[in-house]
Amino acid sequence: MTRPDPVIQPTLRARRLGLHTQHQPVVIMRTDCHVCRAEGLAGRPQVLLSAAGREVRAALFQVEGDSLLAPDEAALSEVAWQMLGVTEGAPIAVTHAPALESVASVRRRIYGHRLDAAAFAGIVEDVAAARYSDVHLSAFLTASAVLPLDEDETIDLTAAMIGVGDRLSWGAPIVVDKHCVGGLPGNRTTPLVVAIVAANGLLMPKTSSRAITSPAGTADTMETLAPVDLDIATLKRVVEQEGGCIAWGGAIHLSPADDKFVRIERELDIDTEGQLVASVLSKKIAAGSTHVVIDIPVGPTAKVRSEENAQQLAERMRAVAARSGLQARCLLTDGTQPVGRGIGPALEARDVLAVLRNEPDGPEDLRRRAAALAGVALEIGGKSEPGEGTALALETLADGRAWTKFQAICEAQGGMRVPPVAEQTHPLAAARDGRVVHIDNRKLARLAKLAGAPEVKAAGVFMEVRLGQEVERGQPLLHLHAETAAELAYALDYAEAAGDIIQVEP
Amino acid sequence: MTRPDPVIQPTLRARRLGLHTQHQPVVIMRTDCHVCRAEGLAGRPQVLLSAAGREVRAALFQVEGDSLLAPDEAALSEVAWQMLGVTEGAPIAVTHAPALESVASVRRRIYGHRLDAAAFAGIVEDVAAARYSDVHLSAFLTASAVLPLDEDETIDLTAAMIGVGDRLSWGAPIVVDKHCVGGLPGNRTTPLVVAIVAANGLLMPKTSSRAITSPAGTADTMETLAPVDLDIATLKRVVEQEGGCIAWGGAIHLSPADDKFVRIERELDIDTEGQLVASVLSKKIAAGSTHVVIDIPVGPTAKVRSEENAQQLAERMRAVAARSGLQARCLLTDGTQPVGRGIGPALEARDVLAVLRNEPDGPEDLRRRAAALAGVALEIGGKSEPGEGTALALETLADGRAWTKFQAICEAQGGMRVPPVAEQTHPLAAARDGRVVHIDNRKLARLAKLAGAPEVKAAGVFMEVRLGQEVERGQPLLHLHAETAAELAYALDYAEAAGDIIQVEP
Repeated sequence: MTRPDPVIQPTLRARRLGLHTQHQPVVIMRTDCHVCRAEGLAGRPQVLLSAAGREVRAALFQVEGDSLLAPDEAALSEVAWQMLGVTEGAPIAVTHAPALESVASVRRRIYGHRLDAAAFAGIVEDVAAARYSDVHLSAFLTASAVLPLDEDETIDLTAAMIGVGDRLSWGAPIVVDKHCVGGLPGNRTTPLVVAIVAANGLLMPKTSSRAITSPAGTADTMETLAPVDLDIATLKRVVEQEGGCIAWGGAIHLSPADDKFVRIERELDIDTEGQLVASVLSKKIAAGSTHVVIDIPVGPTAKVRSEENAQQLAERMRAVAARSGLQARCLLTDGTQPVGRGIGPALEARDVLAVLRNEPDGPEDLRRRAAALAGVALEIGGKSEPGEGTALALETLADGRAWTKFQAICEAQGGMRVPPVAEQTHPLAAARDGRVVHIDNRKLARLAKLAGAPEVKAAGVFMEVRLGQEVERGQPLLHLHAETAAELAYALDYAEAAGDIIQVEP
Repeated sequence: MTRPDPVIQPTLRARRLGLHTQHQPVVIMRTDCHVCRAEGLAGRPQVLLSAAGREVRAALFQVEGDSLLAPDEAALSEVAWQMLGVTEGAPIAVTHAPALESVASVRRRIYGHRLDAAAFAGIVEDVAAARYSDVHLSAFLTASAVLPLDEDETIDLTAAMIGVGDRLSWGAPIVVDKHCVGGLPGNRTTPLVVAIVAANGLLMPKTSSRAITSPAGTADTMETLAPVDLDIATLKRVVEQEGGCIAWGGAIHLSPADDKFVRIERELDIDTEGQLVASVLSKKIAAGSTHVVIDIPVGPTAKVRSEENAQQLAERMRAVAARSGLQARCLLTDGTQPVGRGIGPALEARDVLAVLRNEPDGPEDLRRRAAALAGVALEIGGKSEPGEGTALALETLADGRAWTKFQAICEAQGGMRVPPVAEQTHPLAAARDGRVVHIDNRKLARLAKLAGAPEVKAAGVFMEVRLGQEVERGQPLLHLHAETAAELAYALDYAEAAGDIIQVEP
């Protein structure tokens, strides 16, 4: 049998609109566009854009009439424009996007089958290359949550996520790292741990994330103190010079698929064990770490609610880390109330500074937690005997070496900054005399987010009380910090509706 | 404590771009827009648009510079424009979109908890009102697939889906309906069943869907024979006049949430039992049916692969129907090969016409299936004794009454049409002498879709052989029909890569 003649693809002229479409590559074509018509593209969720050897899958939007586009033009969103690497007016072909093979793996998992390493590699490669639509991403993450990833799957996902990104190497036998699984507002130990550990001569090239569902991630907080969007060359220079850094992981593509997953998890407000383990460990391994200390806060309103769940997570972390060539030590910590006084990027940064500077009103709980975590790092890194790490860490804080090291790191990252202060503050007062018997971390986090954190750096909550403290009616339990009256109002509305965020009993 | 002053929302001027964004409401604002800045909206997946008492949740896109928008303008996509009901230049407020309460239910189901009636009602209400993003929709459908909906949940979802749409009533004690669960290419019995049943005096106001993952839905096929986008008034008039109709369900909003679900299921290419049952039954009940005949084709490459699965689906259909006030009879049918000769809207329509006109080469398998299904409908509708329905149905076809009734229905729906013929056809030939031992329905469906079906009405596959038939090397097994050389080429590429679509053994 004979084949019909090969097809010559008609092209359109690329047009840049400067349109930002939330990470999604988008192409806009006219409803009367001949290519659209000839190729039967309308109604398809994605189309394939090709130009000079590069390909991008994009959502197809259509526009009526000629107010926006000439008939032979195709407008690209900024993401699509950059991925395709074209110039104004360059010819691009728009064709059917073939079905993604890796989506068949997602479908298999939706139908209850477990996936192997090759399947995860295929999925993660397509995710990192921005080939997945929101529908695909959400389906993969949901399918991996309803039927949780098992240990083998978590290892394979971790390996796949490392495989698609850059990977650092330090030429050192020991490279330490730390991570907190989160869920505890204000638990901003990382800048302190890095300063202590690096001051004691261990290598700690720390990359952190921005907030997923919390009012602040370490990168958000650190950004109020120094630049964190470091490229790999800058990061290497800082670490070679100072022994440590506190950078945003997303800027150096250590686990590019993770950023795509995080955006969807944030929109769904979910955070599952398998994704959590793969997300954490893929970044540690890609960052070249050999040892990692993991902080797992446990409390009724923390992310991990029971000792049993914490032990299970710790076991999964250790096992997946071991099989991925990384030594992990988990520390279960108190998660019954926020750490320090600030919740939100700038307010947490002020707590960090108070501890580093040994200020008399610096939060003692934050100091002790940071010392405990740094202590484990010093022990596994061979800088102190077992059981003596915490004492060495406290000493490093007390004698000012940690503060000196922290300032040096900030300078090396691009210059130390002063955290911003909120325009608007408002107290939330006790409704009765009594004792603080319960603090709801989740509601506090929500309150700080409604006040604008983490997008608004200065926004959040400043705690005025701790568990067990006696208070009088009318005494402020916390202060809300916001940039606009609108955000303050949203947060206050929520505080009124949410009931006891801080519970006071007579 | 005192509250800050109430917030006065600043407004922007609405601008219509004529932009079609695949069902998703979208608002485009400038990156330097004061509202965007003041409200801290950038980076949020959805914002809330308000104007004159109406609200729409929309995705926020941002555009640089002033080539597209003035600083105080907000451009709305067509969906957002219509939902908000504004005019050019009308003031609209853009604010934070509060978290959707029903998404907490989706989250609970992701974490493995089952949902109650109130939870499903909340979800479906938000879905029908287009408040869900693709991320939310995909998460709900995936969560309902990985942990399949149980019977109670399916009943609650069905009730919720009926609750948000229009509902028809016919003032008749018996209103019959039919449905095929799909997965068998060319199984286009509906137009025949409606014609036979209506010709015998029973009421059959049939609404059908467009293709989800198949090369043609009944509405796609019927559209090549008569208009199917009937509004409720037209549909009522047709049924009052002729006793039956074959309309597209989506045009009359009988189950508006279903259309949103279907779009996502299509993109993921998934089709799960709970959603299937709720989708089918919600439409039947909303259409005012009292009795329904359900065709479940069973075969190794049909949607339902084993007798056991078919029995389970039939049981779930019957049980959910009974508890929703509908009497369902399921017929398990042969699903080992396509029905009739055509696969694709117009090609299937030609098969239907050949049977109705008693043409000598009309497909006998299609005639017998339609008669069996119509027979059950005539029996449960009291128009024939048990066991005699099929004979009556065959008689109604043979004596031309079904053909007369079908033409009358088409005329009443807006005028009978002649199905289009493809520009391009190409044979797929047997590679050896032998006998046809296996036909892969899934690969055939994919082939027809790559040729352009269902978007291109004339496109698809025309079968030249059936199971058990002897063929010679070079003899056509099927002909591909396509509108463009490009689509023909896609389909041929797939046919070459896919291996034995029609298996011939010596």
